[in-house]
Amino acid sequence: MNDEQGIRDTISTWIEATRKGDIETVLSLMTNDVVFLIAGQEPMIGKETFATAQYQMKEMGVSLEVKSTIKEISVQADWGWVWAFLEVRASLPGGQLLADRKGQTLSIFRKEHGRWLLARDANLLSSEQSPG
Amino acid sequence: MNDEQGIRDTISTWIEATRKGDIETVLSLMTNDVVFLIAGQEPMIGKETFATAQYQMKEMGVSLEVKSTIKEISVQADWGWVWAFLEVRASLPGGQLLADRKGQTLSIFRKEHGRWLLARDANLLSSEQSPG
Repeated sequence: MNDEQGIRDTISTWIEATRKGDIETVLSLMTNDVVFLIAGQEPMIGKETFATAQYQMKEMGVSLEVKSTIKEISVQADWGWVWAFLEVRASLPGGQLLADRKGQTLSIFRKEHGRWLLARDANLLSSEQSPG
Repeated sequence: MNDEQGIRDTISTWIEATRKGDIETVLSLMTNDVVFLIAGQEPMIGKETFATAQYQMKEMGVSLEVKSTIKEISVQADWGWVWAFLEVRASLPGGQLLADRKGQTLSIFRKEHGRWLLARDANLLSSEQSPG
């Protein structure tokens, strides 16, 4: 399979699993040492830290709708990076909107055992930013 | 020369040239198609766009002090990525503080003709964030 398509598939599987609240599948798409850099927050380091945050949101009944528009993909051997524009809507059980954020992301993917996994992610989402 | 050291040298040259207001040297350290992703702003695309912004700041007499703490470097063939913690202080001619920002960065470097150049940069700096 083409590597660029492999990365696109990982992203689309991630988005679909997130919509379904299927945390196990999302966790299978990242490296154990994954790092999430988030504007205005401390870095979130490691799959377990991410998992804890996801399960806490699920317990609160938060549902997520994510849309990713890929602007650029580059692959070199077992590494690749993606620039994307991401839109995230988080809602509470009654449908009340919890957050509506948009912004750029820069992500590093690593190929492990033939599968493309998210390894590092810089997320510049904010509530103010207009689509870019 | 070791590639990781080559990337470190590009970063330290960048910081020193920025301190001196040596815009030409800074411009020589990035690819022509460079993209800067900045929290809360539209992407800044291309070396010329960056140059225009830099010369405008210089005309205003803005001076910059930058400190970069490299947290991680990974190199694969002709490209590499860096996670760093960046601190930027911008001052007006009288010494008045214009901005004091800190935050994480995720940057992609590309080796061109033996030199490591900044190609993509996600800058999560904010005024609020505590050192991480």
